[in-house]
Amino acid sequence: MNIEVWSNARITTMAPDATVPYGLVDDAALAVEGGRIAWVGPRAELPAALRHGAVEHDAQGALLTPGLVDCHTHLVWGGDRAAEFEARLNGATYEEIARAGGGIVSTVKATREASEEELLLQSLKRLRPLLAEGVTTIEIKSGYGLDEANEAKCLRVARRLGERENVAVRTTFLGAHALPPEFRGRADDYIAEVCRMLPRLHAQGLVDAVDAFCENIGFSLVQTRRVFEAAQALGLPVKLHAEQLSDSAGAELAASFGALSCDHLEWLGEEGAQAMARAGTVAVLLPGAFYFLRETKLPPVALLREHQVPIAVSTDCNPGTSPCTSLLLMLNMACTLFRLTPEEAFAGITRNAARALGLADRGVLAPGLRADFVLWDARSPAELAYALGANPRLATIVEGTER
Amino acid sequence: MNIEVWSNARITTMAPDATVPYGLVDDAALAVEGGRIAWVGPRAELPAALRHGAVEHDAQGALLTPGLVDCHTHLVWGGDRAAEFEARLNGATYEEIARAGGGIVSTVKATREASEEELLLQSLKRLRPLLAEGVTTIEIKSGYGLDEANEAKCLRVARRLGERENVAVRTTFLGAHALPPEFRGRADDYIAEVCRMLPRLHAQGLVDAVDAFCENIGFSLVQTRRVFEAAQALGLPVKLHAEQLSDSAGAELAASFGALSCDHLEWLGEEGAQAMARAGTVAVLLPGAFYFLRETKLPPVALLREHQVPIAVSTDCNPGTSPCTSLLLMLNMACTLFRLTPEEAFAGITRNAARALGLADRGVLAPGLRADFVLWDARSPAELAYALGANPRLATIVEGTER
Ligand SMILES: [Zn+2]
Ligand SMILES: [Zn+2]
Repeated sequence: MNIEVWSNARITTMAPDATVPYGLVDDAALAVEGGRIAWVGPRAELPAALRHGAVEHDAQGALLTPGLVDCHTHLVWGGDRAAEFEARLNGATYEEIARAGGGIVSTVKATREASEEELLLQSLKRLRPLLAEGVTTIEIKSGYGLDEANEAKCLRVARRLGERENVAVRTTFLGAHALPPEFRGRADDYIAEVCRMLPRLHAQGLVDAVDAFCENIGFSLVQTRRVFEAAQALGLPVKLHAEQLSDSAGAELAASFGALSCDHLEWLGEEGAQAMARAGTVAVLLPGAFYFLRETKLPPVALLREHQVPIAVSTDCNPGTSPCTSLLLMLNMACTLFRLTPEEAFAGITRNAARALGLADRGVLAPGLRADFVLWDARSPAELAYALGANPRLATIVEGTER
Repeated sequence: MNIEVWSNARITTMAPDATVPYGLVDDAALAVEGGRIAWVGPRAELPAALRHGAVEHDAQGALLTPGLVDCHTHLVWGGDRAAEFEARLNGATYEEIARAGGGIVSTVKATREASEEELLLQSLKRLRPLLAEGVTTIEIKSGYGLDEANEAKCLRVARRLGERENVAVRTTFLGAHALPPEFRGRADDYIAEVCRMLPRLHAQGLVDAVDAFCENIGFSLVQTRRVFEAAQALGLPVKLHAEQLSDSAGAELAASFGALSCDHLEWLGEEGAQAMARAGTVAVLLPGAFYFLRETKLPPVALLREHQVPIAVSTDCNPGTSPCTSLLLMLNMACTLFRLTPEEAFAGITRNAARALGLADRGVLAPGLRADFVLWDARSPAELAYALGANPRLATIVEGTER
């Protein structure tokens, strides 16, 4: 097997037990064998066996970090909500927009009407800016099809995006995202339909995890539980859109199912945080939605720290509340708006984002893990967090090969 | 003279008297001759004289807008404030950061220490992402040199950036930005020095306009007036950093000098707005600084509308309060945070931004004006305002030639 060595790099391993910020090793080297990291550490200590005969890449002093992980996106959708954004700023009320067919209903309609090829091309335009920032793993949820054929179509698009663009895609079935118009007034019936769809979609290899939108304007705790039980029966991990607009005790429910993550969490309370800590559930913070909706209720960062709940950060890329295709912007917003430290925020788009997807083989640079990493024209991840609109990425390496 | 025609475009002329939003003309054409716009309108009405023998470019349905104008930046600086950003998020107080040599003083020190070549390369990294978004005219202020040699160095770098990257640069002398350490306690003496420097820098062709920072933590009204009088004596237009942290009546003073613009303006009052309206002074809003500083006092948009003060929007690119190199992000923030309509915000980075620089020959697509324009993979400028982190630019044309 060929060995390749990246040397002359400032490497931030993001190892959880590192004794220096970011696990930074200056003048470091990283050896790759078979798409996995064979060794990482100070260049002077690189074992001779890895030095001799290896292909060498001179990183020329660049910063080398784990590949970025965007762990919460609704990237696949049809249609366009820019006109609705404009109408609202021109003074249209929510009611007027709803009457004109706007809101999530318009996205569901356009997603259903789009062919798989059209969806693929539209979604590609959103994926590419994320890849240009060094994203090597991305989660993509369904949830705009809301019937079996259209949920399947969206999940197939998600899988195809991954193959086409050489990015690891984790799919999440979010059938319980919103009530489709044909089920108006029959939310329980729709949840039964979601539970019926799930095993069929899973049998097609389309589902890596299951999510729901538990909220006073979404689905109830009881309905969410039914979806989780259906997931559990298939051995699928769950996640939850929880406590975004109110404390609905969704986090406790999700934690009782060993959820990978609870996401949003602006209204999370002490008991929810404790339950998440016990279950090892990651808190995924979504500053783009907070910003776009001009929310004022901040997620309880101090509480999450106190209970040592791991924090991730993601784009929440979606047409209604976070039309965002920049994970680096979210890195800045996590610091600026939520007051995470740059180290916390950067762990949130690497180590903890991988954990929010149940992926123990990435998000950190350590022997045996996937050789997904990014070279940057920067001295520290703090520079990436500080800048607004910059993208100093030099190269992205996926499983040992430059993308 | 050769004629080139861009056809099959959705053209937003941004003409101030347009009867449709953005002055949008579908299936339009734009003819260029000698770097200027010869004609723009519906393709079917293109005069035969311009059709025959012209080089044709098929825009393939792309959106075609005026080139973007970033009318307020401090783009040229030395050093790096990411570590300070991180220290603050890690809990350091302003005092501790100041004691450690942080704040604007650190930028002045690093800017003075940097060679002209170093400054050029560092600034180039910030300029390029702006150009990648279709910026064709940019204002660059001095203000981190704070002595004659170093202010001249920064202004030369600004000029060289323009020549090197084929972007129109307007320089603004901002000697009255902050008190340099060697003048501590002697602000009046420093203002005298600024007034002495100005004609010498102007004689070197380095100054297109003059700006000052009028604020309780900056320079007083009396000191600002002295700087403006020195500018007036040279026939140079003035602008002002005004009413960002308090209503200091800077806008009234600036308007009395016929200022091109007053910038920031969160605390602008009725009298200031009236004075600006009478003088035709543009209000430059800087949402990046508002966001980065987590300000809560919104600029008085309703007041500006009421008095028909033209509104521009800019990055304020600077290391301390807006390390921002995305004008499209500012377009979104102007809408999301300040509630400008997309049409107002887009006029703010085209037509009114040009006006804030005293440039009547751009920012709008009309016969006789500079042929600076951008092609976008979008249907409307509202899409550019709606998206967070996208950049659907297809091509940038500067004076009729693709950059
Ligand atoms: Zn979501
Ligand atoms: Zn400024």
